[in-house]
Parts: sequence; C-alpha cells; structure tokens
Amino acid sequence: MDYQNLLENIYYQVKNQPNKGELATYIPELARINPDKFGISLQFLDGQSYNIGDAQEKFSIQSIAKVFAFSLAISLVGKEIFKRVGVEPSGNSFNSLVQLEYEKGVPRNPFINAGAIVVADILISNLKNPKEELLLFIQKAAGKKIEYNLQVAQSEKSTGFRNAALANMLKSYGNLENDVENVLDIYFHLCSISMTCEELATSFKYLCNGGKLITSDERLLTLSQTKRLNALMQTCGFYDEAGEFTYKVGLPGKSGVGGGIIALYPEKFTIAVWSPKLNVKGNSLRGMKVLEQFTTDSQLSIF
Amino acid sequence: MDYQNLLENIYYQVKNQPNKGELATYIPELARINPDKFGISLQFLDGQSYNIGDAQEKFSIQSIAKVFAFSLAISLVGKEIFKRVGVEPSGNSFNSLVQLEYEKGVPRNPFINAGAIVVADILISNLKNPKEELLLFIQKAAGKKIEYNLQVAQSEKSTGFRNAALANMLKSYGNLENDVENVLDIYFHLCSISMTCEELATSFKYLCNGGKLITSDERLLTLSQTKRLNALMQTCGFYDEAGEFTYKVGLPGKSGVGGGIIALYPEKFTIAVWSPKLNVKGNSLRGMKVLEQFTTDSQLSIF
Amino acid sequence: MDYQNLLENIYYQVKNQPNKGELATYIPELARINPDKFGISLQFLDGQSYNIGDAQEKFSIQSIAKVFAFSLAISLVGKEIFKRVGVEPSGNSFNSLVQLEYEKGVPRNPFINAGAIVVADILISNLKNPKEELLLFIQKAAGKKIEYNLQVAQSEKSTGFRNAALANMLKSYGNLENDVENVLDIYFHLCSISMTCEELATSFKYLCNGGKLITSDERLLTLSQTKRLNALMQTCGFYDEAGEFTYKVGLPGKSGVGGGIIALYPEKFTIAVWSPKLNVKGNSLRGMKVLEQFTTDSQLSIF
Amino acid sequence: MDYQNLLENIYYQVKNQPNKGELATYIPELARINPDKFGISLQFLDGQSYNIGDAQEKFSIQSIAKVFAFSLAISLVGKEIFKRVGVEPSGNSFNSLVQLEYEKGVPRNPFINAGAIVVADILISNLKNPKEELLLFIQKAAGKKIEYNLQVAQSEKSTGFRNAALANMLKSYGNLENDVENVLDIYFHLCSISMTCEELATSFKYLCNGGKLITSDERLLTLSQTKRLNALMQTCGFYDEAGEFTYKVGLPGKSGVGGGIIALYPEKFTIAVWSPKLNVKGNSLRGMKVLEQFTTDSQLSIF
Repeated sequence: MDYQNLLENIYYQVKNQPNKGELATYIPELARINPDKFGISLQFLDGQSYNIGDAQEKFSIQSIAKVFAFSLAISLVGKEIFKRVGVEPSGNSFNSLVQLEYEKGVPRNPFINAGAIVVADILISNLKNPKEELLLFIQKAAGKKIEYNLQVAQSEKSTGFRNAALANMLKSYGNLENDVENVLDIYFHLCSISMTCEELATSFKYLCNGGKLITSDERLLTLSQTKRLNALMQTCGFYDEAGEFTYKVGLPGKSGVGGGIIALYPEKFTIAVWSPKLNVKGNSLRGMKVLEQFTTDSQLSIF
Repeated sequence: MDYQNLLENIYYQVKNQPNKGELATYIPELARINPDKFGISLQFLDGQSYNIGDAQEKFSIQSIAKVFAFSLAISLVGKEIFKRVGVEPSGNSFNSLVQLEYEKGVPRNPFINAGAIVVADILISNLKNPKEELLLFIQKAAGKKIEYNLQVAQSEKSTGFRNAALANMLKSYGNLENDVENVLDIYFHLCSISMTCEELATSFKYLCNGGKLITSDERLLTLSQTKRLNALMQTCGFYDEAGEFTYKVGLPGKSGVGGGIIALYPEKFTIAVWSPKLNVKGNSLRGMKVLEQFTTDSQLSIF
Repeated sequence: MDYQNLLENIYYQVKNQPNKGELATYIPELARINPDKFGISLQFLDGQSYNIGDAQEKFSIQSIAKVFAFSLAISLVGKEIFKRVGVEPSGNSFNSLVQLEYEKGVPRNPFINAGAIVVADILISNLKNPKEELLLFIQKAAGKKIEYNLQVAQSEKSTGFRNAALANMLKSYGNLENDVENVLDIYFHLCSISMTCEELATSFKYLCNGGKLITSDERLLTLSQTKRLNALMQTCGFYDEAGEFTYKVGLPGKSGVGGGIIALYPEKFTIAVWSPKLNVKGNSLRGMKVLEQFTTDSQLSIF
Repeated sequence: MDYQNLLENIYYQVKNQPNKGELATYIPELARINPDKFGISLQFLDGQSYNIGDAQEKFSIQSIAKVFAFSLAISLVGKEIFKRVGVEPSGNSFNSLVQLEYEKGVPRNPFINAGAIVVADILISNLKNPKEELLLFIQKAAGKKIEYNLQVAQSEKSTGFRNAALANMLKSYGNLENDVENVLDIYFHLCSISMTCEELATSFKYLCNGGKLITSDERLLTLSQTKRLNALMQTCGFYDEAGEFTYKVGLPGKSGVGGGIIALYPEKFTIAVWSPKLNVKGNSLRGMKVLEQFTTDSQLSIF
C-alpha cells in the first residue's frame, strides 16, 4: 500500500475541514499553542517511516507519558502493582474523585490521574533518583535525549489543585507511601515532557515489538507485560472515550491534552498524531479523525 | 501448534483445581445446573476444530445472545443505533440504574441490560415478527436449528423486576418506542437461548470472518460493522470486568451468567468455554482461567 | 396580631410580583391549570380562620397526600415501618433511582416517591380495602367528603414510567410484598386527591393537635408519633429543598407538584397555600414566598 | 417538672446499659480518652442549671465548633455566604468528595467538612487575625477563657489528608480565596477547641436567646439569623443522621466526633451531653439516647 499517499490524502482532507474543538487552557503553555499545528508520523517496524506536516516539532505529550511511567513501574514491581491500581476503564472523566471514593482509594487504572499518581509513588519507593531514572527510561525508548519542560511542570503544579486533591485522597486511603508533595512533583514533571510526533512514534516501538527496543534488542518489558500494557491502552487510553476510540479506530493507544495521540498495531507499526484542539472528552479532535480514517482506509485495525 | 494437546493440558489443569465460584441462582433453571459441567470448543476458520469435555451439551447462553440481537439491529438501522445506545464500557455492574440515570436514559453500550432492552425495542420497530426473525438470524449464524427455551424465558420474566425497572426508566426518558411489556418479552426470550459450546463457536464465525458466513459467503454485516462489533465486545463484553478480560486474555468476547464465554481472534479462530460457576463479577470463573491460559500459552492474543 | 391584615399584605405583595416558575406538565390535568390561581388558608387551633384568594377552590394536592398515607400506615404497624423506609432527607431529586440503588432498596424517607410506594404496599398488606380505607382516613381528618380524581389517577398511571421503574426496583430488592401493579394503583390514586386550601389546612389539624381530631378528640396518632411525623416533614417534606424551606420558613410542612404547600406550627396553627407555578426544585414558587414572609413578619417559626 | 430527678433517671438508666460504640481513633488525643466519661449539662434561660456526671470536664468539641465559625462568618458577610455554601442536608457522610464534585464545588451546608473549610476561608478574607478573633467570639459566647488545643490541632493536621483533599478540590472549583494551607490551619484549630458540657451549654445560649448574650444583652446575631441558624442545625447538624436526630429528639443541635452533642429549645434551654463512644454515623451513642429519652419524657421537643 502507498502509505505516503494514503496519509497525505487523510492529512489534507482533515486539514481542509474547519479546525473545531478547544485548546486546553488550564496552563498558559498549552493555551498559547498555535491551534493549527498538525503533524503525523507513521513508522513501521520494518523501517518504513512517513512524516507529514509538523511531525518534527516538539509539543507537550502530557498524559501520554503515563505509559512510560507505568512501563517502568511494572518492570520494577511486576504484578504487585495491581494491588494498588486496577485495569478497568473508568467510565467517568479522567480526574474523577467520585470514582476514587467509590473504589475506596484504588484508582480504576494507571492512566487516569489518580492511577498515575500511584504509579509515581511506586517509582519513588523503588528508585534512588526517580525523576532522573524515569527520564532515562524515556530516553532509552526514544533513542535520544528527551527533557522535562520545567516551565510546564511549574505551571502544572501552580494550578494542580485537583491533582493535589486526588493525591491527598489517595494518602487518606493509605494508597500513597511517600509525601504528597514529593509524589506530585514527579507527577507534574512526568506530564511536562515534550516530544515530536516522530520521537513519539519511535519511542513507542518497544510496545510494538514485544517489549524490546528495535535498535539494540534490549528488553524493557516481557512479552506478556507488553501485550497486557497494549490491552490496557485499548480499554483505558482515552479517558471516557476509550470505547469510542476502540470502536472507531480499533488500535491500542493513548492521548494527552496537549493534542497528541499515539496508537500502535502490534508487530506492525506505530502512529503519532498531533493537533492541539480537543473534543469535549479531552482528546485531539483532528487526531481522532486521522486515526479513524487511517484504519478504515488501510483496514489496519486489530479487530 | 498441537492445539488438541494444548487445550487438553489447560482443560485438565483447570479441572483439577477446586471448582470455586457460585452458580447464578436467580432462576431455577440456572440454579440447578450441574456445577461441574465444563466444555471447550476451539474452531479455526480454516476448518480445524477441537472439542473437549461437555462441548456438545446445551446450556443457557444468556447475555451472549445480545451480540446476535445487536448484529441484527445494526444490520437493520446502521449507525442510527448510536443515537439510542453508546459504545463506552459501563464502569459499573451490568444492570445499574445509577448509570442509566446519570446518562439520561442512553445506555452506555448495547451489552449491558439497559442497552440490550433498547436493542430489543429497535428490533420490534423494524421487524414484522421480531421474535421469529431474531431466531432465524441466530439459526443462520449457527447453521442449524436453535430454539428459545420457553421455560427459561418465563422464569426470567417472573423474576425480572430489575429489568422491568430498567425498561420503565428507558420509557420515562423516551428511549423506548414500544410497550414496555412487548419489549421485555423479546428481551427475556433473547436471554433464554440454549446452545452447545460447539454451536456457539460455530455461530460466532461470521464475526471472525469479516461479517460473512463461512458456509455460504452470505454477508450478515459489513466488514466495518464487524470490526467495530468486535471492538465493542473488547471494551464492553464482560460487564465490569472488561478491562480485566482484555488485560489477561486479549481477545474480543462476550460472557453470560449461564457460565458461557465466547471469544475470537479476527480471521483466525473462535473459542467457546462453558463452566457454570461464576466469579463475583458474574463471569465464568473457569472460563476466564481457560482463556487466559490459552492466549498466554499460544501467544494468540490480538495485542 | 391582625392576621387578616398580615396575610392580605403578603398576598398582594406576592401577587403583584411577576408570576414566575413553571406549571407541572407531565399530565394534562396539571398542565392546563390556570397559572394565576392563588389562595391561602390560615387556621388556628383556637378557631380563628383566615382565607384569602382562591382558598376554596379544589386543586390536586399530589404528594401532600403522602402524609395521610404515612399517618395511616404508622398507625397500623408502628415502628415496624422503619425496617422498610428511612427518615433521612434524600439529598437528591424526589424520584431518584440512584439513591434507591445506593441504599439497597430502602427508600430514604416516606415522602420521596419510592418511600410512598413502600407505604402503599404496607397499606395493601394491612387493610382489607386499602383504597377505600385510605380515603376514609383522609375524610376523617378533613371532617368531610374528599374524593380521588379518577382522571388524574389514570393520567398518572399512563405516564408513570418512572414510578413503575421505582416500584419494580423495590420489588427486585424484596421491599414490596404485593404485586407491582396493585401497589402502583394505590399510589396513583393517592396522588390524585383534590382539596381546597381550606380543606387542607383543616385536615392537617390533627398533626397540630398532638394526633387528635379537633372536632371529636378522636386520636389518629399517638403524641409521640405526631411529633415525629412533624419532625419528618421538617427534614424531608420539600424534596431537595427541605433545608431551604426549614432555613427560610422554619415550620414543618409538605409540598406537592400541584402547587400546594401545607405547613404547621405545633399546637398553634396550620397554613395552606396554593399557587400552581413551581420553582426548579418542584415546589410552589409563590407558596414558598408567602410562607417565608409569613414566618418572618409574624416571627412564628418554631426555631 | 423536677429536671434534676428526670436527668438523673435518664443518666443512670443509660449508664447501666453496656457502653457500646467506638471511640474516634484517627488522632491519638481522641483514641486515648476514657470511653466511660459521661456528662450532661442542662441550662434554662431563666437560670435553672443542672449538671450530672462529668459535666465539668473538658473534652474536644470538634465539629460543634463549626457553629461558632458559621455564626461569626454570617455576622460578617450576611447572606452573601450562601453564594459559597448551601443549606441542604448532605445525604452522605460528612466529608464526602462525591457530593462536592456533584455540586460543582459548592458544599451542601456549612456543617459538613467542606462547608466549614469554606467558612474558614471567609473568616480569613474578612478578619485581620482570624485565628484570634474566632477564639474571642467563642470566649464571648462562653463568657470565659476558651483555648485551642494545639496538640489536637497538630494531630488533625498530620492526619488530615481527606480535609486537604476537600480544600484542594474547593480551590480547584474556585471556592477558596486564600491559600489551601492557611485555610486548613484555621480549620484544624477550629476543630481543636476543648470545653466542658457546662461551658458548651452556656456558650450556645445566644442561639437560644434570639441571638443575644444572656449576660450582657449584646447581640451576636440578628433574630432572623439566629432562627435560621437553628433551622440549619436541625436539618444538617448530625451528618447523615440529621433526619434520625430530628425524628427522635426533635431539637436543633450539633454533634462532634469527640462525643459531644449540643441541642437547644429556642427561648427555653440548652443541653450538652458528652460520651465518647460513637455510633456508626459518628454521633455519640449515649448522647443520642439521653436526648431522645429527655425529649420523650419531658415532651420538650419543638414539634
């Protein structure tokens, strides 16, 4: 199949429609992004690679980074992690305290905010320099230098009252081992990572490749962990729109409020899209369209 | 791979563990089933077929039949169906009124009870003899005569106050077009269908085969509808345990409180398991174990 | 104090403001009421009596009748009633299924719909001719002939899907002894009773008089039952606005969606107001204003 | 009536029953209280005063102090306060985040924790030295020196993650003007106040006396504010047991997890009870019994 042509068709078709949706505005770094930024990177395990539009411009990957944090945590503690966080879709918005209270302090899954806060706590308990080692893990996946955006981390912190509420609630249920402040510090840094579409598509290849880096064959996760993490992205990767994404796109993936979406077909390819305007569920509106069109046209959904 | 050997190993390994869990007891027909019944049927599209244990004994497929009803409904009305029922996992137990109220009368998905009741309503509005035509659809999928169990249907009706509550609530929200009583009649008949593991595995082959019957090449659903229905089973097929099933098994599937589970790998195989004792989430305890072990050992998960 | 003058001042002051709010429209009998109807009846135990406006015109007292049904039920079964219905304010809208599910089928109090349906069930279980005997009880309280409005009862039934949902849910939790249909029949008749403000104020005098009829000294409730029923009206008589009513008016009372409100000061007086337009919480907008003004001006709140 | 005799009878009758319930254990200062402490103080506006048992021993009044904080706040800002906190019973446990989320950051009433945190924020915004001036207000009501227990305040802080969660959530909804930390500091100090039953009964006399101090005739609240505050205690003073308390006792009042309960009959008397063991709703078990018995025997309920 001529993927370059296929992607270009989709790209321009979507680009020519009105750019609907809303920017995330809770921090200035997201609010002032040029809303017309739009990039796609498609990368096959066999080396084929296609970039379109702003695929080489950095953006805030936000919640997508939760996949790296969870990967590192499960590689450290294995199944023990599921004593503290579940694997069920949330059925509610991504930072719901209601859900957390209903579930007695055990977050539904590691990709809602409460779950990622627990994951951050696990990293602190199991690493000497959690902030540095988490970044090293991401750099290993990306095959290059990746950085926290300290300004974004600071902004997240200064407006993150709801995450502070979640962390305090987790603490009240005994599901945080470390100080609330320290845990939130890791969490806010995690959310601050910047990548390009191309870097993002590259850095998710280990999940496409059974847990091993393409470049060095180094194993980051076991095959079983990898399959299960992919399954988890399928059911929980898109907040309260995971069903919609699964239904329409049919690939495991993860989105972030910076407008990025990553998806992958096991053993075949990864695809990253970036367009900052979000639908009402908090997922990139154009990103969703691109991916739905791509799997429909290519018939490359896993179902 | 020697699937006969693989399945036998799993079957005996699971059978030799204590038979935990509880029978469904809300109707006598389920309560008095021999709890040690245990069968598996694995059928590949290429014709390979493996049956173990009680694979040729009829049991009440219960909610699994919702997949047939939804298939028929979407083949009749297409995407219009999603004005009346969603595609998101429920995040709550399968007959929750809370969820329904929160969502203003639009069930989260067609596989929770409220959603299947709406599907039944759609069948009545679009078919001359809905009860007969639904059965014909199932018979076509199965390639043989399948019947409602009228005694089960009657028992469902005489204890089905919670489903009557759901139907009345849907009616109050304007999301039922037909009389509550007529809709429930279809619904209770739908839940009463009996099949063997072998019949079940056979009858789901159209979903494995891109929407077409294996036997005649007749198309029941479009390719796109089929992929999406499979995706829907992945996120919503196991009540509040859909995440767990996806995580551990990694195949789209559907369970019923009769102890049956069907799962499938698109373009490869279908697999049906029956063991009547249920875990706390209402899914066959041994069935879950068999499928987890099968995809782990065979590495045949879609992720 | 010159109550005639006081009431007239309040009446005209409220009447001269724009007549805001909305009529109940779910049944035609309520929807086509003249929205400008407005009456007040104030009656002291010592015999003083003041009627203003449309105080002698019949209207549908709706949920106010739940107080009579509960009175009769507690006189029949005593404290046993609290095994099946609570005494706590609902904190949610008056016909919430969420609350009922959360509380496992025990309605929060006898004045929300679910609670009144349980009360109707108790009447059936304890009376030979429940519909007739309930009416006789009300006639005794009113000291005159009072009737069900059969047309209203029929309309309630033909639109009462939400109440049917509640009744079926109660049945599913084992908190209805009798057939859903029979229970709803009593319930819908209960809601259909018509009275004038004057009749309403008269018929609540037994609750003002320690449980005894003024006219004959016959005891309908014990003193303790009476005090407790008044307390219950205080905390639960106004759906999700009970706090507001207590805060602003400071009298025990009960409202109905027909626009009627009854309130009373133990051992002193009863006061009934009728104005059909409702606020967003479902209570008579002008009725609330009249009562707030009355207790503020007269300082006759119980607090 | 011989109140000394009446109270003694009730006191010994309750004391002779097994001392059921549980101590609050979340801070050591409450956990190590002698669970058999038991005191009553009844004080009439006309000067009659009755103390029994440990009525002159200090205990932690905990949430009872929220009444003082609310009194001071409403005396400062008047009705404006109701833009930020409601007057409806909560229908849920006293520190529920669910409720707060459902209500979009406006606490249901000023006596649940979230509401009292908003009240603390209002005090900071309107007072120069809020901690000192709040204490002065309480001392004025008590007519003597009252102190914060700094050790209790510190313990509350070091375990108060749930309150920190509530405060952060209020902040995220824009319903806190000041720093989370400062607001919680006032809140935790407020909860730390110690009083005896006698002091408590004395210090609530202004609410019994139309808003004025008995001793000096100085007005702390207007008559209308006083009546409304009493009404608010009636519907919201006992967490999720306000209905039960109203139903059984029939007096406005407030409880604390230190085992104290204050109740009052407007223009007649105040009554304070202390017994540290709590029922499952968090209210003093013996305290509830004493008050129910007292209003039943004396017929001194307001209903």
